[in-house]
Amino acid sequence: MTNKPLILIVNDDGYEATGLEAMVEIAKTFGEVVVVVPDRTRSAMSHAITMNEPLHVRQYKEEDGVSYWRTNGTPVDCVKVGERVVLRDRHIDLVLSGINHGSNSSVSVLYSGTIGAAIEASFSHPAVGLSLLDYSPNADFTAAVHYGKIIVGEVLKHGLPAHTCLNVNFPNVPLEEIKGIRVTRQTDGYWYQDLEERIDPHGRKYYWLTGHLVNTDPHEDTCEWALSHNYISVQPVQYDMTAHQYINDLKYLENVQ
Amino acid sequence: MTNKPLILIVNDDGYEATGLEAMVEIAKTFGEVVVVVPDRTRSAMSHAITMNEPLHVRQYKEEDGVSYWRTNGTPVDCVKVGERVVLRDRHIDLVLSGINHGSNSSVSVLYSGTIGAAIEASFSHPAVGLSLLDYSPNADFTAAVHYGKIIVGEVLKHGLPAHTCLNVNFPNVPLEEIKGIRVTRQTDGYWYQDLEERIDPHGRKYYWLTGHLVNTDPHEDTCEWALSHNYISVQPVQYDMTAHQYINDLKYLENVQ
Repeated sequence: MTNKPLILIVNDDGYEATGLEAMVEIAKTFGEVVVVVPDRTRSAMSHAITMNEPLHVRQYKEEDGVSYWRTNGTPVDCVKVGERVVLRDRHIDLVLSGINHGSNSSVSVLYSGTIGAAIEASFSHPAVGLSLLDYSPNADFTAAVHYGKIIVGEVLKHGLPAHTCLNVNFPNVPLEEIKGIRVTRQTDGYWYQDLEERIDPHGRKYYWLTGHLVNTDPHEDTCEWALSHNYISVQPVQYDMTAHQYINDLKYLENVQ
Repeated sequence: MTNKPLILIVNDDGYEATGLEAMVEIAKTFGEVVVVVPDRTRSAMSHAITMNEPLHVRQYKEEDGVSYWRTNGTPVDCVKVGERVVLRDRHIDLVLSGINHGSNSSVSVLYSGTIGAAIEASFSHPAVGLSLLDYSPNADFTAAVHYGKIIVGEVLKHGLPAHTCLNVNFPNVPLEEIKGIRVTRQTDGYWYQDLEERIDPHGRKYYWLTGHLVNTDPHEDTCEWALSHNYISVQPVQYDMTAHQYINDLKYLENVQ
């Protein structure tokens, strides 16, 4: 038994990611740490779960008091496996997801396995997803670890509103260039996805999904504005997707035959 | 060239689903129909996209003027493939997703490939996801087709608020028992997922994800209330996931060091 908080770490970049090491460095400062992550890269898996094949779970490391497990499941499955199989319904004080290699700002929140897992965790626990705006496998997480400790410390101290997780994005600049933290809203925009056509050695067409974020929302209270001005973006995220503002406009549908 | 609306159909149950035939029956009433669906069941894929492998796309049928295509991608990829590869940026008047075999009410909206695809489509087009509360491959879609035509007709006539899709769920009862349509909000609750442990022939443990929806929100304006009282639930869904109501509460984070 221990009085230290129990922290579950999940991610979507898999067990070999540098960002996972950075997250463990943050979490070890505060409590007992258990890691449950995918056995391979599962980026852009959103809130997907594995229904049509069974899940395998195994411990692959125990190091400095941290217990590491991996599964063939999605990031959201990792939360479930952590809760029910690895920790067998022990009380979890905090779930951390990441640190993701690459941005989860704006509408990327919809595609993100990192944030999908944080949202799943937020049904039952305080949860924070952390992402660094650098897709490189060798990204430098120094500034993210520094500020990550500050943010995680505050969340452990104050908690979070019920059923709300934080989507934290770090600009890809050195520690001394970070201007501070901004609490933001999701930037409106869309991911313009193109499909790059290629021909395989057998003469058949195939396509790679590619694209870029189109920002239609230049306001100063958005995540994109904060990040492009070297602020860390901290965004509260909910799982109610109802467009409440349009319910009355659509009530006419109750009278059609 | 034609004056009929161009309707793109996607789904998450794959090209062999009975619910796809039902959706084609609805759409054919109104316009030119193109189907782009997964080449296998892709349930519970949420808003996932395929980044780490190439996509293949091929036409598998042309019947009664409807063109049918399938891809190894996710439901959200089907929207992209439909827009960019199959329809090559032709103007799409409406995207229909489903008809799904099984409920997408309450928090299932987060896990649903059907609604993931409808949300993706809503960045650019009016979009409606349809689901029947019957998981059976042999589900009876008679009532869903009847009311689906009414709802789709209204959407084609009136449009939808920008960047909003409809999540339509049909109760699993015969046509004559349906009481009407209710415009609802997402029922609060969570999916209690258990992991059923089994032993494979080689003596190793594996797990099946299972569970049930826990409804914590018994109010009459919710989707679950409507469905359990034999109403069709029509819910406007948005992609802004910001918990706007908590931004001010979290502003203290801007001042921590």
